Amino acid sequence: MHAYPELLTLINTKITETSFGSSPKELYDPITYMMGLGGKRLRPVLTLMAADMFGADVNKALDAALAIEVFHNFTLVHDDIMDNAPLRRGKETVFQKWNMPVAILSGDLMLIRSIDLLAKTETNQFAKLLAVFNDTAAKVCEGQQIDMNFEVMPQVSHEEYIHMITLKTAVLLGASLEIGARIANASDTDAEHIYEFGKCIGIAFQIQDDILDSFGQTAEVGKRIGGDIASNKKTLLLIELLASAHKDDSKLIQQLLAEPNDEIKIAGVLALYQKYQIKAFAESQKQQYLDRAFHHLQAVSVQADRKQIVMQTAQELMQRMS
Amino acid sequence: MHAYPELLTLINTKITETSFGSSPKELYDPITYMMGLGGKRLRPVLTLMAADMFGADVNKALDAALAIEVFHNFTLVHDDIMDNAPLRRGKETVFQKWNMPVAILSGDLMLIRSIDLLAKTETNQFAKLLAVFNDTAAKVCEGQQIDMNFEVMPQVSHEEYIHMITLKTAVLLGASLEIGARIANASDTDAEHIYEFGKCIGIAFQIQDDILDSFGQTAEVGKRIGGDIASNKKTLLLIELLASAHKDDSKLIQQLLAEPNDEIKIAGVLALYQKYQIKAFAESQKQQYLDRAFHHLQAVSVQADRKQIVMQTAQELMQRMS
Repeated sequence: MHAYPELLTLINTKITETSFGSSPKELYDPITYMMGLGGKRLRPVLTLMAADMFGADVNKALDAALAIEVFHNFTLVHDDIMDNAPLRRGKETVFQKWNMPVAILSGDLMLIRSIDLLAKTETNQFAKLLAVFNDTAAKVCEGQQIDMNFEVMPQVSHEEYIHMITLKTAVLLGASLEIGARIANASDTDAEHIYEFGKCIGIAFQIQDDILDSFGQTAEVGKRIGGDIASNKKTLLLIELLASAHKDDSKLIQQLLAEPNDEIKIAGVLALYQKYQIKAFAESQKQQYLDRAFHHLQAVSVQADRKQIVMQTAQELMQRMS
Repeated sequence: MHAYPELLTLINTKITETSFGSSPKELYDPITYMMGLGGKRLRPVLTLMAADMFGADVNKALDAALAIEVFHNFTLVHDDIMDNAPLRRGKETVFQKWNMPVAILSGDLMLIRSIDLLAKTETNQFAKLLAVFNDTAAKVCEGQQIDMNFEVMPQVSHEEYIHMITLKTAVLLGASLEIGARIANASDTDAEHIYEFGKCIGIAFQIQDDILDSFGQTAEVGKRIGGDIASNKKTLLLIELLASAHKDDSKLIQQLLAEPNDEIKIAGVLALYQKYQIKAFAESQKQQYLDRAFHHLQAVSVQADRKQIVMQTAQELMQRMS
């Protein structure tokens, strides 16, 4: 069994050794740039971990792992255009560094290349891999659209929110694991359990992210506390506050949402989060998904010690974020 | 053997019967809208014609044919954003009717769905189909980028121009035919010949398009004569004029390119096209590619009468455009 740092090195070496193309430069330079920005490489590492867990040589899953990382970066390149985002991992976004047409086209090409990479996998399960990959890809697009819709919706329910983060971020973690498992010829039942494990962990991560934005330490989170509050982002916390506040606080909430001074706004919303025990609510939601995740991991029919690394990775990621 | 109108009906029925998804509406409505805008459906018809030519049931190639049409429409949706185009086939572009983020995302989803459709083909040649499809998809993106690069390049050579139109439009015609041929289990040699036929016909079409913009009849072309001249578009005609003009005409050309009055500009450039026999040059180039195309069609190892419909389709399209 291989640990995270080992698998990360494998992925990073594979990325360095891969040429995505060269001409025209305007199309391929952004791909090399984006793939070189680094990051945890969580998704491809999960693919390798799952292959390893089910007894395959991790090298057999390396093309598919890279396919998932390229796909993930394609979504970032296009999302950054839609969000008009200047920075990604502390560096200029493709959209900012080049321009919008280049970001659209190089993103398109990354999506095409991700399918190419997946197709390089030596497997007799390719039809299944492609179905999982494409189904997930469509869901990620749906999640991004629903997230954009939230910005202009007056109200979002708790269920709608969970549905959105499931599509936008959680299913790709599930698919990363499932694809690794299927390359190792795991059974359908095991493949589904490991997919559900990844999906539920993904939902828990996102809820944790929402909690940290309001209750984390600036240094650890790496960004200003209350950014979501300042931008009226419909996080699980704000959604729950709007749903649970007494009628006489509703007016105050609306005033705070319209408050131009961020400091006053953040302090006011945080006070209401405390009054209505919103953090405890979000923590319990997160815990529900973590429990569900570990239940699915437990149900996977391999020896317990083979699940240790995936389990530990999920726990460490949750802790590092807390 | 089936004629164009029959195959067109097959494709249009297939499009009407296909659901690309429904929720969220903002993502799927543009796909239905775009696929419903109509058009000649040349690419999918070519796929069906090639399958037919090599003796397969055309229904066997219907999913792949639709995959190619969806892919083609994905490129149009994204190109329209990059070109800031308000109209497509006389209707609002997706970008204009919805907005830029919706056009990016629904285009992305069309690319994903095109691969899904290709994967539905019953064939033992799927790896090859996917390789042809993806290789072509990458080339189309490269062609679009090179075309955008041309806008800011001071000079473009004749060879660079042919390379650009080959990638941007011709290879997809070649691939449409090759995919149909491979579904019918054509030999590699035949698949290559039919691909080259489509590619060379595609180049000839594009040159014809350039000629018509300067020398066509408004009613037939369906747009204003001289639009390319007015916008300083680097067509084969302008490239050849710049390359062949005597030194003493170079200054006049530069003045015309900077001329703000379109009528004066178009008349001036047309006069120079006449002086340097640019139309004859372009016609001879077009004829070269047509000859090359028919040479490849001739080399395909099926009975001559099975090639008749493809041959006739190509000729009719050239005539309808002239």
